[in-house]
Amino acid sequence: MRIITISREFGSGGRELGKRMAELLGCAYYDREIITAIAREDSLDERYVEKMMEGPSFMTYPITIGCTLSYPPYAKQNEISILISQQRVMKKLAAKGDCVVMGQGADSILNEYQPVKLFVYADMEAKIRRCQERRPKGEYLTVRELQREIVRVDLGRAKRYELITSSKWGNKENYHLCVNTTGIPIKALAPQMADYARFRFEMEKQETSEIE
Amino acid sequence: MRIITISREFGSGGRELGKRMAELLGCAYYDREIITAIAREDSLDERYVEKMMEGPSFMTYPITIGCTLSYPPYAKQNEISILISQQRVMKKLAAKGDCVVMGQGADSILNEYQPVKLFVYADMEAKIRRCQERRPKGEYLTVRELQREIVRVDLGRAKRYELITSSKWGNKENYHLCVNTTGIPIKALAPQMADYARFRFEMEKQETSEIE
Repeated sequence: MRIITISREFGSGGRELGKRMAELLGCAYYDREIITAIAREDSLDERYVEKMMEGPSFMTYPITIGCTLSYPPYAKQNEISILISQQRVMKKLAAKGDCVVMGQGADSILNEYQPVKLFVYADMEAKIRRCQERRPKGEYLTVRELQREIVRVDLGRAKRYELITSSKWGNKENYHLCVNTTGIPIKALAPQMADYARFRFEMEKQETSEIE
Repeated sequence: MRIITISREFGSGGRELGKRMAELLGCAYYDREIITAIAREDSLDERYVEKMMEGPSFMTYPITIGCTLSYPPYAKQNEISILISQQRVMKKLAAKGDCVVMGQGADSILNEYQPVKLFVYADMEAKIRRCQERRPKGEYLTVRELQREIVRVDLGRAKRYELITSSKWGNKENYHLCVNTTGIPIKALAPQMADYARFRFEMEKQETSEIE
């Protein structure tokens, strides 16, 4: 099984890189699919699952679950159940075959598959520029607001990562390769990273056959 | 000018990677050469220069300089003079043409040349194994002693890096690519990294020609 996990800073182009790598390697790409599957399996609203998986660990506002309205501490209980579902869903998807899995602690959850683990990052200035270029129609955030948003999203990712893996999000020790996308078009970078993934898979195959 | 700077954890195989990349790219390789040049220019003992460039910022033991014996605070003064020489020597070498420069804050000192900046690291276990495999004849250190030595050398590198660059050694933000060598033969990794360097140089060339 050839699995690539990609953790990334918000605005670094990690998602585009993951999609392009999956295309180049001819394998599945899982990102939003994981949220959809959790929502379906747990009969929860997709947006709610997404919020829970994005935000910090403790939610302090009411949220709709399916058709009912939930307040903490129900939220906390749901959060734990979502975490469990996430692991189940992710492993089920991974078992289907070669894939690229975005974020969500996949590098730790899918560790048994010996995935190639990438971390994608960029300078704050580059991340802000990227967010500006890709902003939804009608949305206009100032540079300061964008920076705050980037920090907020990444803080949520870091908190959830630490909850799942008990290790620090973005610490290079957790990954095989950390790549800075500042000033590099993702389209040009993707074949490089796909090559690197192929190389790592080849190395692991050799190592396995040596052990055998 | 095509310059690659390589910072590395002790025992990660960064030096071997640098040498192999220089061979593959057909360019100069500077590591020990910088120390030799500083010693020559400043009429200092090579081992002394090496010790100063390896160790932490404040030395608290007597050391021989050329033929004389020096005690702090002379050492402090020499340390500053070595730092200045280091910058001069490094820029002189870089100006000669394409090269790979190992450690010593080269990523910051040579920033004007827009070098490709790599950081090489590995798990502690892998670094210890590598040190054991490459230990000088007759030297035998226990695993605990090796680990202490690895931490000591890297602490020295970190301190000197911070002194030169005012930024944190090993922080991925300072580099273009951070590569984990755990379980990967350097000989196999080198062509991958040389390819990546070529790719980055190509990208920069395109960007420059767009600006022009």
